[in-house]
Amino acid sequence: MQDFQRDFDGLFNPRSVAVVGASNLPGKWGFNMPLNIIGGGYRGDLFMVNPREKRVLGFTAYPSLRDIREEIDLVVVAIPARKVAAVLEDAAEKGIRNAVVVSSNFSEAGEEGARLERRLAEVASAAGITIVGPNTMGIYSKTSSLCCLGAPVYPLPGGVGFVSQSGNLGVQLMTWGYRKGVGFSRFIGSGNAANTDISDWLEFLGEDPETDTIILYIEGVKDGRKLLEVARRVTPRKPVIALKAGKGRQGERAVISHSGSLAGPYELFRGAMEQAGIVVAESTEELVDLAAAFSTLPVPRGNRVGIMTLGGGWGVAAADACDREGLEMAILPQSVVEELDGFLPSFWSRRNPVDIVGNVRRANHFRVLDALARCEEVDVVINMGTLMGRDFWLENMFRTAVRPLLSMLFRRTRLLPLFQLSVWKGFRESLRKRGGQSREGSGGIDPAETLQWTDTAVIRRIKRLMEEEGKPIIAVAVNEGERSASFRMRNAGVFTASTPERAVRVAGKLAGYARWRERLR
Amino acid sequence: MQDFQRDFDGLFNPRSVAVVGASNLPGKWGFNMPLNIIGGGYRGDLFMVNPREKRVLGFTAYPSLRDIREEIDLVVVAIPARKVAAVLEDAAEKGIRNAVVVSSNFSEAGEEGARLERRLAEVASAAGITIVGPNTMGIYSKTSSLCCLGAPVYPLPGGVGFVSQSGNLGVQLMTWGYRKGVGFSRFIGSGNAANTDISDWLEFLGEDPETDTIILYIEGVKDGRKLLEVARRVTPRKPVIALKAGKGRQGERAVISHSGSLAGPYELFRGAMEQAGIVVAESTEELVDLAAAFSTLPVPRGNRVGIMTLGGGWGVAAADACDREGLEMAILPQSVVEELDGFLPSFWSRRNPVDIVGNVRRANHFRVLDALARCEEVDVVINMGTLMGRDFWLENMFRTAVRPLLSMLFRRTRLLPLFQLSVWKGFRESLRKRGGQSREGSGGIDPAETLQWTDTAVIRRIKRLMEEEGKPIIAVAVNEGERSASFRMRNAGVFTASTPERAVRVAGKLAGYARWRERLR
Repeated sequence: MQDFQRDFDGLFNPRSVAVVGASNLPGKWGFNMPLNIIGGGYRGDLFMVNPREKRVLGFTAYPSLRDIREEIDLVVVAIPARKVAAVLEDAAEKGIRNAVVVSSNFSEAGEEGARLERRLAEVASAAGITIVGPNTMGIYSKTSSLCCLGAPVYPLPGGVGFVSQSGNLGVQLMTWGYRKGVGFSRFIGSGNAANTDISDWLEFLGEDPETDTIILYIEGVKDGRKLLEVARRVTPRKPVIALKAGKGRQGERAVISHSGSLAGPYELFRGAMEQAGIVVAESTEELVDLAAAFSTLPVPRGNRVGIMTLGGGWGVAAADACDREGLEMAILPQSVVEELDGFLPSFWSRRNPVDIVGNVRRANHFRVLDALARCEEVDVVINMGTLMGRDFWLENMFRTAVRPLLSMLFRRTRLLPLFQLSVWKGFRESLRKRGGQSREGSGGIDPAETLQWTDTAVIRRIKRLMEEEGKPIIAVAVNEGERSASFRMRNAGVFTASTPERAVRVAGKLAGYARWRERLR
Repeated sequence: MQDFQRDFDGLFNPRSVAVVGASNLPGKWGFNMPLNIIGGGYRGDLFMVNPREKRVLGFTAYPSLRDIREEIDLVVVAIPARKVAAVLEDAAEKGIRNAVVVSSNFSEAGEEGARLERRLAEVASAAGITIVGPNTMGIYSKTSSLCCLGAPVYPLPGGVGFVSQSGNLGVQLMTWGYRKGVGFSRFIGSGNAANTDISDWLEFLGEDPETDTIILYIEGVKDGRKLLEVARRVTPRKPVIALKAGKGRQGERAVISHSGSLAGPYELFRGAMEQAGIVVAESTEELVDLAAAFSTLPVPRGNRVGIMTLGGGWGVAAADACDREGLEMAILPQSVVEELDGFLPSFWSRRNPVDIVGNVRRANHFRVLDALARCEEVDVVINMGTLMGRDFWLENMFRTAVRPLLSMLFRRTRLLPLFQLSVWKGFRESLRKRGGQSREGSGGIDPAETLQWTDTAVIRRIKRLMEEEGKPIIAVAVNEGERSASFRMRNAGVFTASTPERAVRVAGKLAGYARWRERLR
């Protein structure tokens, strides 16, 4: 299909953008897209085309593309389907090389639409125009701060390149990514892909120096062989993670009415993807988890997992998940067991998962973490029970300190002063006794460790250990408020999973990718 | 093992509680538990036992249980393992019938501990004392506002009864439940279960009028036959949902070092559970999702799902998940297709999933929802794209309205007044034209529908439809901030899932339970 050289630079770093069908009516595509381009901080020139308005969003409105004298790198089209081909003809005349066609009612809507779409492709390909869409939610590009999107999503800048065959789902996943602190380099809502295929985008992202991790949401592929060929070239250098939708009978039927593309038998496709080194995600949530993980964590050297947990139940959940994901629980060498014996309560698990049985000496948490990260038998560390999240910490403080106080005030008023006196005495005694009794973990908390109890302290330690040992350390924050997680991630580049099962899932996919790269050598 | 009548009323509605090992030292169990009892709002009498203190948390400290003259219904024990038996002897003398034994270092820690634990069981059973634990995180009871827990967790009052063989995991799941608006009637951290078995608790919850849904976290079962027997009696009346941990080789080994109980081959156990009508959860997140769903939604009449989505991609994700969960996509009767044809854009999917292709007329969302809920071919409705969540709504407003304005102010200052004028003109025109062009959904938003765009409006509609049609309607809030979800749930009893895949999973489990109940008839 592609018999011309594409101008990807003009698409992702346009010096000027024209919006055909620009509108002042809230909720219309021609209103939302330029508004989001403005809000996203695009710094190039912006031109509005609308024959019935003098001004759109404050900008001079031109009757047509031809009336704009300046050069245009990218045209955004948001007018009814039957009028789009004419706009592309104008664009061709002006030498425009890229078009984002938002308009729907093309091949996804039946035979008449398919005919219109073929016409678009002919006009565009003859003129060397790359069409994103039609029926697309748009594109995002970090390098030009271009949020050319139908929804008000302003991704964090980062290294994840994302091609999505569903726009709606794509922008939503970018919103989830935002909360998890995942930064994006490019987003392409490929839509009906009139004169492109997913492999074009994969090839571009594979070469793109701004992109270090690639994620794909795939409903159907026109040329599967080409996709796999391109993937084989990209995956040795950059991880490519794909979610294939339309897996079964009913899903496939839903794909047909959504984007009109044909899906094949999933198991076949899945096998082929894995052979090309593509990491396969099984759900929308997982795609975002994996994007976050692969863009943050080093690739492990093997599949042996070391787990630290504050409570036994979570250790069991994680071990179960390891069985499911084909990961091995690392066998701790005697030297490590003896090291931990030196400071953990006598009834700690003495094996992996390292259950530190609720020990609340903060220094011990860090010593266990160090021991696991440095242990030669461990390829991936999963750390549970140390990260809390700011929201949870605040809630916890409220519950621990304020609620009992209020309850005393209202229910046992006469006791309140004595209550305060008792707590104060206990606190002073704790200070005095700190360090003592720590072996059995029953001495209560050590007030001198307060500063160590922040998430920042944990994050710093994990980050340093990752740098020193080159191993992925996955922190599980079961109380991760989305806000605090993203805060942590953005500031420190540490990956957190919200459950042990998800952490192990991610570890399994990392190990699988590592295995694949190993085989190539 | 049980050769005495248990006093469950004394355990869950105690008029008085004594804490042996009560302490003023922050972080110690003897400090945390009475503090949480106070904070939870327990209104009965509270006694502290500590021979070395005059006062604990403001209360008079008694040297021993025997020194308390008043009657005690429940004793909480938080002292080293080897001293616990003597306390139970004192308790027996005082006629106390229930003990929550927090102390660890019993059977989970080896042979010496196991011996101590057997001794406990002998003393207790001879005196008719039910031991919760040892090695337990405690209990919660709605009816007496008793938060007798080692962690500062104050569950919402509600109908879910929860037995957990891991305390740490149990209280954490209650915290997740809190955020999702799941209310609890009772919690039992069963610990090492010295003289109880999980079936005792299941039997109690089965009869408990405060409990309408039961969830179990199981690591191992002493008497599997008894558990299934009890389950068979309970499940026809109340849903019982179980997460079995220690499934595979490595998980099993982790269980042994956690609670010391023996786990069997998972597939066998799973099959037996399902035959007894127990709903099986596969992960910790899912256990909470299912608790929320089963305690909120009616049981469906069949397994045909009707899906409404604003964007095609999410419809595909949901249809895929239906394939996986064995659910049928309902086939819409011609009459329903024609009804929707009357107001949806011509290029809507015209089949299930009902993809309303981004139509932003709010009235249409409700008409589709009504049509699906009332359709005889549909047993479960999944609704995507209408709920937004307060946090997202606020964020969205900021991005839509404030960011572009700021961007104009700093980057295109001269254009700002013209920008504002354009938007104002457009807004007025929208008002004037409202209703027009709505068929193709391209007329932009209708400002008169503002009030309909709140989540409250959706929740009301869903609730009314559920009452009228007696079908589960599952709302998917992909942007569900946990806060707003719990707010909605608590105020309206509407279940929301955070992804389509999770919504379908829940629907599959509901349908499975419905099928099982049907077979009984």
